[in-house]
Amino acid sequence: MKPSHMPLQSDMSLEDKKKQAGSWFAELRGRICAIFEEIEQEAPGEKPPGRFVRTPWQREGGGGGEMSLMKGRAFEKVGVNISTVQGEFSEAFRKEIPGATEEPRFWASGISLVAHPLSPLVPAVHMNTRMVVVGGSPITDSPPAGGAALSNASCDAQKAHRGGITKTWFGGGADLTPSHPFEEDTRDFHAAFKTACDRFDPAYYEKYKKWCDEYFFLKHRDEPRGIGGIFYDYLEDDWDRHFAFTQAVGEAFADIYPAIMRRRLHLPWTKEQRHTQLVKRGRYVEFNLLYDRGTRFGLMTGGNTEAILMSLPPEVVWE
Amino acid sequence: MKPSHMPLQSDMSLEDKKKQAGSWFAELRGRICAIFEEIEQEAPGEKPPGRFVRTPWQREGGGGGEMSLMKGRAFEKVGVNISTVQGEFSEAFRKEIPGATEEPRFWASGISLVAHPLSPLVPAVHMNTRMVVVGGSPITDSPPAGGAALSNASCDAQKAHRGGITKTWFGGGADLTPSHPFEEDTRDFHAAFKTACDRFDPAYYEKYKKWCDEYFFLKHRDEPRGIGGIFYDYLEDDWDRHFAFTQAVGEAFADIYPAIMRRRLHLPWTKEQRHTQLVKRGRYVEFNLLYDRGTRFGLMTGGNTEAILMSLPPEVVWE
Repeated sequence: MKPSHMPLQSDMSLEDKKKQAGSWFAELRGRICAIFEEIEQEAPGEKPPGRFVRTPWQREGGGGGEMSLMKGRAFEKVGVNISTVQGEFSEAFRKEIPGATEEPRFWASGISLVAHPLSPLVPAVHMNTRMVVVGGSPITDSPPAGGAALSNASCDAQKAHRGGITKTWFGGGADLTPSHPFEEDTRDFHAAFKTACDRFDPAYYEKYKKWCDEYFFLKHRDEPRGIGGIFYDYLEDDWDRHFAFTQAVGEAFADIYPAIMRRRLHLPWTKEQRHTQLVKRGRYVEFNLLYDRGTRFGLMTGGNTEAILMSLPPEVVWE
Repeated sequence: MKPSHMPLQSDMSLEDKKKQAGSWFAELRGRICAIFEEIEQEAPGEKPPGRFVRTPWQREGGGGGEMSLMKGRAFEKVGVNISTVQGEFSEAFRKEIPGATEEPRFWASGISLVAHPLSPLVPAVHMNTRMVVVGGSPITDSPPAGGAALSNASCDAQKAHRGGITKTWFGGGADLTPSHPFEEDTRDFHAAFKTACDRFDPAYYEKYKKWCDEYFFLKHRDEPRGIGGIFYDYLEDDWDRHFAFTQAVGEAFADIYPAIMRRRLHLPWTKEQRHTQLVKRGRYVEFNLLYDRGTRFGLMTGGNTEAILMSLPPEVVWE
């Protein structure tokens, strides 16, 4: 799959940039869903191959999103959500975070994906990219939230915003969570994102890999959520470049994750491996509910619970 | 089972009171575990009846606890933890909560129980009582936490403590979480705690039932965790009376929950009912990781993760 970068858009208005980014998130969603449905066709199993079910939702006060959920034979559960929302941080939310009382207007658009494959030999994965604008948007008086992508964005927004001016940035990343890691998969997953990063800045990969390792760490277990990936945020000041980078990250994901799945899809697995996977999924739940910014802020501020918690695994065990 | 109240102990020293309460929590633990093992014997099923496994743990800096875990045929998983710890709130913990920087010494002892029965017709249950002392204890420089009982206590402590003086209080409660509520069980569970409350104060029951309903509510789902029970805290100024009340609460639990279990233990259940139970358990996980004070503070402040997360259900489904 080839990147589909746009020509430089420095002259575009903010409104045009929003449209451009929003369209690209939707396009990426469509592309990934199509690949995942192909994988369902290829996968072994007695169940019929799964198909995505799309559910649009509206946000009171501005914007909305679309959930795409599939439960199949390769993917026990996979959710791909896009959302584009605008509004103002709620009173409750503003109080919770210093600075958010000043000018709490925001716009945010993004894609958020979590896949929980059936086979314990196929790693779970998460990918999320987003564009955020703080200040300058029409004011509404609704809570900020939506899907996790959006909640993450809302959560970021007040950190960067410093009264009156408009700030625009990109954030995102992807991380892999195998319960039975294959060295080759770990290596290639990291290599894919290193290649994407290196095209833009030789310092990106080390920096964003480290940020990912730090973010997706379960302190109470003293263990990482998975084998990592990249995590970046607050990329502002050069919209064209950061949008191109964000596209490269999305495309790297759309290449490498299906490739890893296809390597492992036909391997037989045991009951013991499945058990290990279900326990590992418990750690995933712990991370998302205890630590994940997007999940916690989204839920606490009246977000779309169904979209946000689409990330939770279908079946889980705690020993 | 008859209450085993002690004679009035107004003349006791604080050290004697600590011993008295600590012994009682341990005694209640032993009594409840014995009843639960009897129920395992009575329960149908091909698996052999479960037995509790006890695991003591030490806390760096002072005190420790004992986990009792059973996985059987009536109880898919049940944990009964006691802990008695003392120390000083950690630096990180103090910063997180206003006032905790002043005099962060504490002592806490308690019992914490969560049961997840196998049958979807037998309700899950939680019970926790604790004695907390803030100020006046020997200073150590370790983080506060332990099992959930203790973490709850630690979390409470700095709220009530106002520099230099020693405060001593009791807190606790119990709540029932059926996935298939029987009206009779709901009624009798509430009646048992109403009886315990009414012996001490005619206002207790309404007040503590309301507190329970408010505390165990999942805002993001707009639904209660279960059918409620009671929740009380900060009962200070009359140690004898509040200890007696705490004993009455523990004893009410030890009477009513086994009675409810025995009513439902032999009822046949369906795959659909089991599925509903596993989904309901997901809400339990969401509550404990998103909202529960004891769980969150315990995990964030270096508590005993295994003891704290013993509350999580053995098998869970998110749809």
